[in-house]
Amino acid sequence: MKVSMLSALGKRSTEPPISWLMQAALSRPKLISLAAGFTDNESLPLEETRALMNRILRSPESGRASLQYGSTAGDPALRELTAAYLHRLDRSTIHHSITPSVHSPSRLLITSGSQQLLYMTTEALCDEGDIVLVEDPTYFVYLGIVQSRGLRARAVRLERDGLDLAHLENVLDSLQRAGELRRVKLLYLVSYFQNPTGVTTSFEKKSAALKVLKKFEAAAGHPIYLLEDAAYRELRFRGDDVPSALVIRGAAERVIYAGTFSKPFATGARVGYGFLPEPLFTTVKHIKGNHDFGTANLLQQFYARALASGIYAKHVARLQKRYAHKARVMHEALEKYFPPAVEWWEPEGGLYFWARLPRHITSGPKSKVFQTALKNDVLYVPGGICYADDPARRKPDNGMRISFGNASEADIREGIRRLGAVLSKLV
Amino acid sequence: MKVSMLSALGKRSTEPPISWLMQAALSRPKLISLAAGFTDNESLPLEETRALMNRILRSPESGRASLQYGSTAGDPALRELTAAYLHRLDRSTIHHSITPSVHSPSRLLITSGSQQLLYMTTEALCDEGDIVLVEDPTYFVYLGIVQSRGLRARAVRLERDGLDLAHLENVLDSLQRAGELRRVKLLYLVSYFQNPTGVTTSFEKKSAALKVLKKFEAAAGHPIYLLEDAAYRELRFRGDDVPSALVIRGAAERVIYAGTFSKPFATGARVGYGFLPEPLFTTVKHIKGNHDFGTANLLQQFYARALASGIYAKHVARLQKRYAHKARVMHEALEKYFPPAVEWWEPEGGLYFWARLPRHITSGPKSKVFQTALKNDVLYVPGGICYADDPARRKPDNGMRISFGNASEADIREGIRRLGAVLSKLV
Repeated sequence: MKVSMLSALGKRSTEPPISWLMQAALSRPKLISLAAGFTDNESLPLEETRALMNRILRSPESGRASLQYGSTAGDPALRELTAAYLHRLDRSTIHHSITPSVHSPSRLLITSGSQQLLYMTTEALCDEGDIVLVEDPTYFVYLGIVQSRGLRARAVRLERDGLDLAHLENVLDSLQRAGELRRVKLLYLVSYFQNPTGVTTSFEKKSAALKVLKKFEAAAGHPIYLLEDAAYRELRFRGDDVPSALVIRGAAERVIYAGTFSKPFATGARVGYGFLPEPLFTTVKHIKGNHDFGTANLLQQFYARALASGIYAKHVARLQKRYAHKARVMHEALEKYFPPAVEWWEPEGGLYFWARLPRHITSGPKSKVFQTALKNDVLYVPGGICYADDPARRKPDNGMRISFGNASEADIREGIRRLGAVLSKLV
Repeated sequence: MKVSMLSALGKRSTEPPISWLMQAALSRPKLISLAAGFTDNESLPLEETRALMNRILRSPESGRASLQYGSTAGDPALRELTAAYLHRLDRSTIHHSITPSVHSPSRLLITSGSQQLLYMTTEALCDEGDIVLVEDPTYFVYLGIVQSRGLRARAVRLERDGLDLAHLENVLDSLQRAGELRRVKLLYLVSYFQNPTGVTTSFEKKSAALKVLKKFEAAAGHPIYLLEDAAYRELRFRGDDVPSALVIRGAAERVIYAGTFSKPFATGARVGYGFLPEPLFTTVKHIKGNHDFGTANLLQQFYARALASGIYAKHVARLQKRYAHKARVMHEALEKYFPPAVEWWEPEGGLYFWARLPRHITSGPKSKVFQTALKNDVLYVPGGICYADDPARRKPDNGMRISFGNASEADIREGIRRLGAVLSKLV
């Protein structure tokens, strides 16, 4: 009698694999955590936030607007500003002109962080048993959505410059042969400094991937969407920005773009957004009507002011420098302390390094590497939790996500030194 | 090909009935809206919010904590404060002592408004085709959840002091006879100044209702929960507070209590909360992990400060007086302008009057009453949208929800005068 009243979704909504990691951290006060996806503590914009809040709340007009309910789709001014901001971002990356409708505020939805957009979009498109294509590895919280909603994930290999296109085609081919193509609803792509690998998928690869999806649509009997998760896009500290999938020719009907203001500004003030093609936009707006009928207006007005005043852009520029520095510190420590048999990819942005141990050595929670690291008070995210359940391949268990986002420089150096010592002994 | 990619939930997530009301309001700039559920604009706590934000953000410690990610269940300090606050509210209403575990912070979840708790709880408990019991009429946004998730609602009659207990038992009896009892998961009860009727369900009735639910549990084969939506509880301006269903003996295992800080303080700073029995608490926390992995920390710190400093309580007291006054203004206008054939219930709190036309006269969007009112630039919520689809009875279509929450005193008087003129002609 105890749990049988739960819905199927309720039963499938189990402890996320990251939870016990956080608990392990709590029980060891001297632990250096290179696991958390938290952002840099020291550069959080306290003064900027205070100034913006004062400006909003000093005026009766904007103050009242910010403390009253808004509409489900979001504050009209913030939607305009966000659309214009995205348009500027994308325009600066390409030579030819962009149709303004590509970044139309009319199909922009404001959400409580981009996570909410991922959830609602998946709700809108996927029934139990449906299939989503994901990168291998991918963002593990998205795998939580997949798991709880009873979906199946099919993993597409990842190369240094993004999705393995040949493998994407293979996966779709074999799904077609198995008569499963009609269950395929979307490709979830963390396209900028991917969590966990730090890989960015090039514009050429995004365009080609969309073509591949379109090729299979006729057999699927319905559109297959490209859900681009751009949460880390603005955290680039080297190289040039890559155009979003929104500007691919013909993308307006097929690309969902999920962005966020929290990660590049203040994760405690959570506002995200999404561009969605119709009729998906309207459907997801209705779903949001049932979830919460609109994101906190005060936070929306806050980001509207931050964008309009230039405070947002200024802070992002500062943050990019800060992460560039922290990434360099980690990179130098990795070169100094990690044994040569461990490979890692150096990212051009985001918050993570991705390291791979030699194949026969595992990094999972029960592994010698993880347990010895924990004993030496250093924590990383075992790569295994970032891989979808896909019967087509064995789950790799030799990856490590190592974050420079939250730890101080001293802790980055010391954490990598400890981890390096553990690896040098065990690898 | 156009919409067939939507999930069943996506297909069922249709335009909420209130949307076109809002659009009607937008197209008539001189319209007096007595329809919106917005709160009083003039008493929004601008100065208080500004002071609290300054206090939080001036200190590096609390400032950083507020601008960084938090945990999924919510800020520990806010959970403690909320639990203590609820304990005080309930303790002041009864003579005997209350076990502290009744208001334990360990089973308190912080959410983005209480609406999110309603959504996630329903997700955790109900599969497609399952049955929820609702008041007749009830909060129409909850009916949106029911509709989109493919649930069935069964309506339980409402009396002046709350739920009709005999009818509750009848409904469950007939569900049992139909072999449907195992599909019944919860009773959704808007227990304080209900939206739309303003009715408060007495403690005795809540206790009795829980007994009725328990009686049918054996035959159902699982717990049947009482989901108490207390969103309006603190907006009482007359009479004594009623204990929550949490303090009913044996309720800890069966009562879910949904509360909110936004409605009594600032609807633009949306934070709600819920007490849930295990294992539901853990399941809903996991679901929230997938929705957004935690409510905006800045807003949580904000309410923690507001509660701890007494600013929250002071504002609520002020608001109660304000609504008492506005309700009186509306009441006097109703007495003066409404024809005697129209009945209404005077509320002791909340934001709404509920009026009923003589049975043969309808109030729906296409009715003469509604259309004439609109031509005369006054808007109300047609009661019809507040009734669940229940084959056991015909949907009443003669109710009107009239709100004094957002309109100014002058607009309340003039709005009721116009509405009264329309009704005097047509009734």
